[in-house]
Amino acid sequence: MTASPEIERLIQLLARVPGLGPRSARRAALHLIQKRDQLMGPLAEALASAAERIVICSVCGNIDTADPCAICADARRETGLICVVETVADLWALERAGAVAGRYHVLGGTLSPLDGIGPDDLNIAGLVERVGSAGITEVVLAVNATVDGQTTAHYVTDLLEPTGVRVSQLAHGVPVGGELDYLDEGTLSAAVKARRPF
Amino acid sequence: MTASPEIERLIQLLARVPGLGPRSARRAALHLIQKRDQLMGPLAEALASAAERIVICSVCGNIDTADPCAICADARRETGLICVVETVADLWALERAGAVAGRYHVLGGTLSPLDGIGPDDLNIAGLVERVGSAGITEVVLAVNATVDGQTTAHYVTDLLEPTGVRVSQLAHGVPVGGELDYLDEGTLSAAVKARRPF
Repeated sequence: MTASPEIERLIQLLARVPGLGPRSARRAALHLIQKRDQLMGPLAEALASAAERIVICSVCGNIDTADPCAICADARRETGLICVVETVADLWALERAGAVAGRYHVLGGTLSPLDGIGPDDLNIAGLVERVGSAGITEVVLAVNATVDGQTTAHYVTDLLEPTGVRVSQLAHGVPVGGELDYLDEGTLSAAVKARRPF
Repeated sequence: MTASPEIERLIQLLARVPGLGPRSARRAALHLIQKRDQLMGPLAEALASAAERIVICSVCGNIDTADPCAICADARRETGLICVVETVADLWALERAGAVAGRYHVLGGTLSPLDGIGPDDLNIAGLVERVGSAGITEVVLAVNATVDGQTTAHYVTDLLEPTGVRVSQLAHGVPVGGELDYLDEGTLSAAVKARRPF
């Protein structure tokens, strides 16, 4: 034991936060204790209040303090467009970019037979239902460009075909600000294939 | 804005924890929200209870939920030995190693004229008082092997000279498990100079 049980418990819990290991949890705990009033107290309150108030949006699967979430409830959003993402983190990334005018649908992961994750483990039925019921005209598949992501994209596309909505996916290409020299061959081939008039 | 104000505030506070940046704070917040019952709630409670109960030991400067701290109150500790450290983190490191049989004294930093940190900003007066009053026979200076640490060590040694206690410092040498090839010249010279019979 290096500290009181109370501090040890705090360190153990902090060590389970992604991004912190056992060593940095110790450093974080010390820093928090030193900044008790400015950081530790407010953080405790923010965590407690978030733990109490946060709900998952029953429409899209986003995380918010209201259900439906602020995005689903926002009347200024395009009603015909649904952007399908794997996780809430991806949703946040697209929102930061302000790239999507419509609403979202969080699958909660990707199909992954090796990990035993099938269609029933993802929020796919909810997507089909949304697309079938409302006046949806386009579904943008913003899944990751990984094997699992693409498998999921194909599966969802097949399921949505009978509804007749337009299904699109994100463009592949050179990241804005990226240098060609550092890009992989797959991205470069895709960027050349999808070249556009200058 | 990417999430509700409640979640944004949580992310902002998490980003101020050392070891987490803005990006990893976002990831941490999502993970915490997903593990609401197992991690987020308990962490909120641990932080609140620590913020409320933790005190600084008036004897040695350690952090604990009791004053004097568990180490100062431990009757099995050698009463004649005080190990002087810069920070509570150093104290914890020595305690993990079980290397010190006596008690500690946390200076709270090092002398650093460039940063405007003088003797009055550190808990040096308290050390001199402790050494003068109790039956202290040895003071081990376990300060860092940096310029500031060594300056502080010299200053403390001079101050303690009139008391007649033995003042020692940590040995310099090859870290246990370390490879010579990766060590700096200063450490290697010190290790050769302090060589011992095999």
